[in-house]
Amino acid sequence: MTAEVAIIMGSESDFTTMENSLTVLKELQISYAVRIISAHRTPDRLFDFAKSAEKEGFKVIIAGAGGAAHLPGMTAALTHLPVIGVPIQSKHLNGIDSLLSIIQMPKGVPVATMAIGSSGAFNAAIMAASILSISNNDIADKLKKWRDKQTNEVKKVPSSL
Amino acid sequence: MTAEVAIIMGSESDFTTMENSLTVLKELQISYAVRIISAHRTPDRLFDFAKSAEKEGFKVIIAGAGGAAHLPGMTAALTHLPVIGVPIQSKHLNGIDSLLSIIQMPKGVPVATMAIGSSGAFNAAIMAASILSISNNDIADKLKKWRDKQTNEVKKVPSSL
Amino acid sequence: MTAEVAIIMGSESDFTTMENSLTVLKELQISYAVRIISAHRTPDRLFDFAKSAEKEGFKVIIAGAGGAAHLPGMTAALTHLPVIGVPIQSKHLNGIDSLLSIIQMPKGVPVATMAIGSSGAFNAAIMAASILSISNNDIADKLKKWRDKQTNEVKKVPSSL
Amino acid sequence: MTAEVAIIMGSESDFTTMENSLTVLKELQISYAVRIISAHRTPDRLFDFAKSAEKEGFKVIIAGAGGAAHLPGMTAALTHLPVIGVPIQSKHLNGIDSLLSIIQMPKGVPVATMAIGSSGAFNAAIMAASILSISNNDIADKLKKWRDKQTNEVKKVPSSL
Amino acid sequence: MTAEVAIIMGSESDFTTMENSLTVLKELQISYAVRIISAHRTPDRLFDFAKSAEKEGFKVIIAGAGGAAHLPGMTAALTHLPVIGVPIQSKHLNGIDSLLSIIQMPKGVPVATMAIGSSGAFNAAIMAASILSISNNDIADKLKKWRDKQTNEVKKVPSSL
Amino acid sequence: MTAEVAIIMGSESDFTTMENSLTVLKELQISYAVRIISAHRTPDRLFDFAKSAEKEGFKVIIAGAGGAAHLPGMTAALTHLPVIGVPIQSKHLNGIDSLLSIIQMPKGVPVATMAIGSSGAFNAAIMAASILSISNNDIADKLKKWRDKQTNEVKKVPSSL
Amino acid sequence: MTAEVAIIMGSESDFTTMENSLTVLKELQISYAVRIISAHRTPDRLFDFAKSAEKEGFKVIIAGAGGAAHLPGMTAALTHLPVIGVPIQSKHLNGIDSLLSIIQMPKGVPVATMAIGSSGAFNAAIMAASILSISNNDIADKLKKWRDKQTNEVKKVPSSL
Amino acid sequence: MTAEVAIIMGSESDFTTMENSLTVLKELQISYAVRIISAHRTPDRLFDFAKSAEKEGFKVIIAGAGGAAHLPGMTAALTHLPVIGVPIQSKHLNGIDSLLSIIQMPKGVPVATMAIGSSGAFNAAIMAASILSISNNDIADKLKKWRDKQTNEVKKVPSSL
Repeated sequence: MTAEVAIIMGSESDFTTMENSLTVLKELQISYAVRIISAHRTPDRLFDFAKSAEKEGFKVIIAGAGGAAHLPGMTAALTHLPVIGVPIQSKHLNGIDSLLSIIQMPKGVPVATMAIGSSGAFNAAIMAASILSISNNDIADKLKKWRDKQTNEVKKVPSSL
Repeated sequence: MTAEVAIIMGSESDFTTMENSLTVLKELQISYAVRIISAHRTPDRLFDFAKSAEKEGFKVIIAGAGGAAHLPGMTAALTHLPVIGVPIQSKHLNGIDSLLSIIQMPKGVPVATMAIGSSGAFNAAIMAASILSISNNDIADKLKKWRDKQTNEVKKVPSSL
Repeated sequence: MTAEVAIIMGSESDFTTMENSLTVLKELQISYAVRIISAHRTPDRLFDFAKSAEKEGFKVIIAGAGGAAHLPGMTAALTHLPVIGVPIQSKHLNGIDSLLSIIQMPKGVPVATMAIGSSGAFNAAIMAASILSISNNDIADKLKKWRDKQTNEVKKVPSSL
Repeated sequence: MTAEVAIIMGSESDFTTMENSLTVLKELQISYAVRIISAHRTPDRLFDFAKSAEKEGFKVIIAGAGGAAHLPGMTAALTHLPVIGVPIQSKHLNGIDSLLSIIQMPKGVPVATMAIGSSGAFNAAIMAASILSISNNDIADKLKKWRDKQTNEVKKVPSSL
Repeated sequence: MTAEVAIIMGSESDFTTMENSLTVLKELQISYAVRIISAHRTPDRLFDFAKSAEKEGFKVIIAGAGGAAHLPGMTAALTHLPVIGVPIQSKHLNGIDSLLSIIQMPKGVPVATMAIGSSGAFNAAIMAASILSISNNDIADKLKKWRDKQTNEVKKVPSSL
Repeated sequence: MTAEVAIIMGSESDFTTMENSLTVLKELQISYAVRIISAHRTPDRLFDFAKSAEKEGFKVIIAGAGGAAHLPGMTAALTHLPVIGVPIQSKHLNGIDSLLSIIQMPKGVPVATMAIGSSGAFNAAIMAASILSISNNDIADKLKKWRDKQTNEVKKVPSSL
Repeated sequence: MTAEVAIIMGSESDFTTMENSLTVLKELQISYAVRIISAHRTPDRLFDFAKSAEKEGFKVIIAGAGGAAHLPGMTAALTHLPVIGVPIQSKHLNGIDSLLSIIQMPKGVPVATMAIGSSGAFNAAIMAASILSISNNDIADKLKKWRDKQTNEVKKVPSSL
Repeated sequence: MTAEVAIIMGSESDFTTMENSLTVLKELQISYAVRIISAHRTPDRLFDFAKSAEKEGFKVIIAGAGGAAHLPGMTAALTHLPVIGVPIQSKHLNGIDSLLSIIQMPKGVPVATMAIGSSGAFNAAIMAASILSISNNDIADKLKKWRDKQTNEVKKVPSSL
């Protein structure tokens, strides 16, 4: 059986951020595959992956990248599957370069961009679940329960008050 | 029959930007409904809409807002449906305030954020189509054809060369 | 007896910043209540709180939030009481996202925005005292004395000179 | 009878922005006085005004300034009355310099800062009304009605749809 | 005979900016070819071009792109030829998004980035000439003369003085 | 005998930065006085100082401040002596708020602004020496020698090469 | 007789901004000379000017430049005379590039930086007058009168009120 | 025998960043020379170096500088050789000041600007190799092999998965 969500990232060091996506998908029991694909260092791997992603059975792609972050946008250029982009915190510019490189896509080729860093990686998986929920009642139920649980866990007052 | 995509916006003046979403959805023959919902001026309308969006049959929500743009994020807080956010160009800060207000969502409540302005509104509809394609082969086919047409229309050299 | 000032914040982690508001209110002997209300994770709690704030007897609301900070603005959308917003330092963008999300409110729904971080939380309480002073001579006197004391405590030259 | 709200601004050219405050105050029948006070060109006038503002009977001060905008903060330094700051759009930096100069006040001396430009000036008056409402039921009623009217005037769909 | 410099750009609208490169190359009698290659709308064309650029005889590539500007970086990922990037002025963010998307390349795949807009396009051609000068005395002489002429044309005092 | 240079700063914590001014003035044997003057917490002290600075015999004023940094500009508003502003590193915004608050002065009231932080404080003293050099050959000689020494101390190659 | 103030600028187009310096100097009857000196296009002219500026009798140098604005800093590197820098509005980045290129000088070589654009050029001349006032009572008197006149010309209320 | 690449930097402290250039050049067996040249503290050294760089046999110049980074641009002003600029991380502004000071060059005098910090220094050497490859097949072969090796070393999945 193939995975529903592909999680790709530009380099191994991005995994510290991107593993937040895995945490969510595991909890919601959504299948996934993880691959390192560098737009700049392995452009052929990117082309091969993106062009065959639909055939491989992936339904949603989560792509994390930092700096001049071209991975999400180039993946989106090569497939009609929804691509969710996660701007990785960059060394010097706090990820604002990553964010603008991912989000400012031209007409016709969108990337669904998330917040910078680990919150963004976490939310990319929630968004993937939300997208899959449209045609999968089981995931929809799990997602709603997860959301309810999240709501219930917010305390009324700070515990250190 | 209900519409598949809801397009909501904070004020009537946002329609100049958001009608780019309509153009795409019409072309791809995806049903939609348009509503003005101001997070700040009509918070009750926002609550009513977001809480009943799933029951109304909407599958994807496109929300455009500018400045302290709370509409996409608050909608996402009230439904598990995928919410696509479009940062409207703001008067003084070029939409960078809109963009950050929409994208920097906390863990658990994502908004799929698009580029600032009309490109973002246009792409929000492409993204909606992409999301619907997962469980709708007809939309998938139309989207692929649209993408191919787009590719073929790119000239080889500038006509004014 | 009800409290005069409500201090609300988006998550428990915001309390490290927001307790600066408490310090001031205690010193000026102004009554307050503290609650965690997440605009995104507990939107119903937000609606309930904001709609009943006036009836509960609150006169001023201090709301701290970070990132796509929607709590102050949404509270302001649901009550005519003065809302003072405190932009919490965000993880990646130093709170500039929090600041813009809070301050760039549209016509008709203002948030009295303070500086980013602990200075802002501290000053939110001074501002609350200043607002209450208009109709409360006792608070006015305490505030003036506090301000005088502050002035007198500024040294003439650096002690490490 | 003295005015309840003082509206001050750094130069005559700021009036195009600041007259939005007047519009609101007139509509809500709140008395006001308008003065040009330049922190840099008329510092003595600033000192005289701010030090006597309470005695003159003002309850709230709205101060608009642009660029290195020192008027709101210096006024706040000289009175315990609540000061609402309006960042005027600057010529080169879109008012981001005005905004930061007004909002980033140190501990102990707050300025309630509004959005950049005419929305900010408009909202400064709403905030003044909100503050005065605490001890003035008549203003509270007018403000609530104004807010309701504002809510009701938001159309359901764009008229150009 | 093949051209020495390839000038590529993401869309036809970029030509207004990029024709500044042509002006310089014509004046310095350096051969060039112009092509529209969109990283996002024609990714295959990009791959074909970049992979065969060396064989086609190009020695330097000038690539102009705006927004999430992936063209220069993806070209650089697919060839070892020097790629000079020109950030095109974007609609909302003045080209700061274009600039960061082009310049913040990861270790191993550089893009020689120029200033935003027409100055950058102009200078890309000067830089190409400078690079070709290393092994071409004729171009070196022409470039030096052009630089001398430029120096001599700077007036001593403003003519409108 | 009075001091030639006044060094003022907004709070005691600014001294860590501002002592860089002292280092230079000592080395160049230029007399100075150091005072803490907070524009916001001690506005009267600011007025007294600035209005009497000329009579006290000061020739140049160095003013360091952070955040909504009003000290240099307000001092410049109250004296015709040259005021050199030093933007102190702020806690959240790296001093960009301090810099803009100091430099963006309106027509008629300039502040000679230096770089952010300790380099700026150091250079403020060099600038003071440069200004005093115009009418003081002794200082001019010392400054030139200091500059020559600085030039000679730059190594030819990194020692860790 | 030599001029007291040298006004230099990077290109003829900067004169629209820099003529604001002339207006002030004329009014205060301070002698000046105007020259176009491009750091990048005429580096030798820059070296010759800066190295001989003291001998030529100049006491203060005003240098305006835009973009990668190297003229003020390089002039300061070559003379111990006080250099006042004016950041010219740049085409794409509003002069923030000019400002940072001028102000962020390293330890030892300061540039007294003014606001962006015409206000900065105007104030550069006021600052020059302020500097010359230290050793020239005549200029000091004229400057004080100019400042008084400026103060007196500020109206009490907006004329369009 | 002379070196092909000159690596210059503004101060000794820049070497921590710039030694990344050396690593690459050593690996590709390209000869280089390293010199400290401060545009501001040793302007004569800069002039001498840049004017004689061609005669010394250098073919490409790599220049690293931070803050008001004038070294790359002034070098480019004094030679027609290609100058590659590396923006060094600055203390307060993350190198965005360095980047803008280097890249925003006026028409006629380009600097091939790299990313901020160590990635930029590393890539400057790759770019130098790329430039030299045009007329040196040996370097071209080494560069291609280096690029292939880089591609092959990218793992398929994160090792910590």
